[in-house]
Amino acid sequence: MSGRLIAIGVGPGDPELMTLKAVRALRATDAVAYFAKAGNGSNARRIAAAHLPPGIEELPLYYPVTTEIPRHDAAYGSALCAFFDKAAQTIAERLDAGRTIAVIVEGDPLFYGSYMHLHVRLAGRYPAEIVPGVTGMSGCWSAAAVPIAQGDDIFAVLVGTLPEAELERRLAGVDAAVVMKLGRNLPKVRRALDRAGRLDRAIYVERGTMAEARMLPLAKKPDDEAPYFSMVLVPGWEKKP
Amino acid sequence: MSGRLIAIGVGPGDPELMTLKAVRALRATDAVAYFAKAGNGSNARRIAAAHLPPGIEELPLYYPVTTEIPRHDAAYGSALCAFFDKAAQTIAERLDAGRTIAVIVEGDPLFYGSYMHLHVRLAGRYPAEIVPGVTGMSGCWSAAAVPIAQGDDIFAVLVGTLPEAELERRLAGVDAAVVMKLGRNLPKVRRALDRAGRLDRAIYVERGTMAEARMLPLAKKPDDEAPYFSMVLVPGWEKKP
Repeated sequence: MSGRLIAIGVGPGDPELMTLKAVRALRATDAVAYFAKAGNGSNARRIAAAHLPPGIEELPLYYPVTTEIPRHDAAYGSALCAFFDKAAQTIAERLDAGRTIAVIVEGDPLFYGSYMHLHVRLAGRYPAEIVPGVTGMSGCWSAAAVPIAQGDDIFAVLVGTLPEAELERRLAGVDAAVVMKLGRNLPKVRRALDRAGRLDRAIYVERGTMAEARMLPLAKKPDDEAPYFSMVLVPGWEKKP
Repeated sequence: MSGRLIAIGVGPGDPELMTLKAVRALRATDAVAYFAKAGNGSNARRIAAAHLPPGIEELPLYYPVTTEIPRHDAAYGSALCAFFDKAAQTIAERLDAGRTIAVIVEGDPLFYGSYMHLHVRLAGRYPAEIVPGVTGMSGCWSAAAVPIAQGDDIFAVLVGTLPEAELERRLAGVDAAVVMKLGRNLPKVRRALDRAGRLDRAIYVERGTMAEARMLPLAKKPDDEAPYFSMVLVPGWEKKP
């Protein structure tokens, strides 16, 4: 009998935003795996810490590279691919031994999450269950109390790495949007929003559900870099009654 | 001293997908309000039932119309507007009396939720807190174990009420999508997906996080109506390693 793989979304940052199901699943697992940057801790582990059974086996999965190699370089892809293969193998060995392994991730496991790389390698061979979580973007618009989309609004998730003209075109063509991956792309995202006529409604949110949360109109944010945990919200529902 | 308004997302259907914060907030509230169709119960109340303190005041807010008047008819808009005004007034009276009022909603309060109509009427006048929830779409792609979007994928939420040509154009222009509001629009959504070259990847999910969940490739779903609690998932991440 092989074991069971369970991917657990632990939500956007506030441990109180974990679901009851996530907490119960953690208590019934034999080992817990999580992604982390070597040297940093894992955010997912930090969020779930109070609910990890004492003495549970922990499997930290350290990314071999993050920003040392450009993302579209072939070396980046092959380093990450080998890393995900090895991580899947580490988990598979324990599943073969009949153990239940939880992979904890920030936000929701199947929405822009690293767990997906394990899922495609393991879910065909082992029973896999997904426990959805509150996404980072829900955490951000809730912290900012910004109604994001309503009725027939078209909502899009965009990344700041898109070319400026494409960002502008897409921002102009939807009712509501979230722009992720800001970093050094923030000045470009601002220009695209301005040209799309959406800058006046855009809200910048940094570390949305953490104690040090910060939110302000993007038009008032100095044009410097944005940290990893930040996003821009472009609320829809302009004709609200 | 006025009271406090708190909007609580109770998640997509499975009561276990409520957050710890939602459960605790419910225990500390004086009254709980929820939207419902007259004659039907409230789905949000059903999800949260086990966590409502005994004897708590309940404020059911019954929609005056649902499908009796066409949605783009002016009479529909004015009936709903008067209803939301009155519902906000009912809540405001209790807030003025210093009470804490929770509005419980399925999914996430600020993502296509009816609470937003109360928020715009009350949040400027009273302290308002939002407790985000797991969205219906996260519940569906998790139940179907479908990785929806990854990396630089552009993800969109679309509604089946869009004109067919626009649906086709938008489905062809994004990496991943969710199509909501299927109902009688299902044959149109299928044709638009087919013409956009995306039908072979599309998954139909009905009542995603409920006991009677049903999911199958859209190409294999008979071309009949889809119930309210259904959506189509178009997964991105086509070049997964």
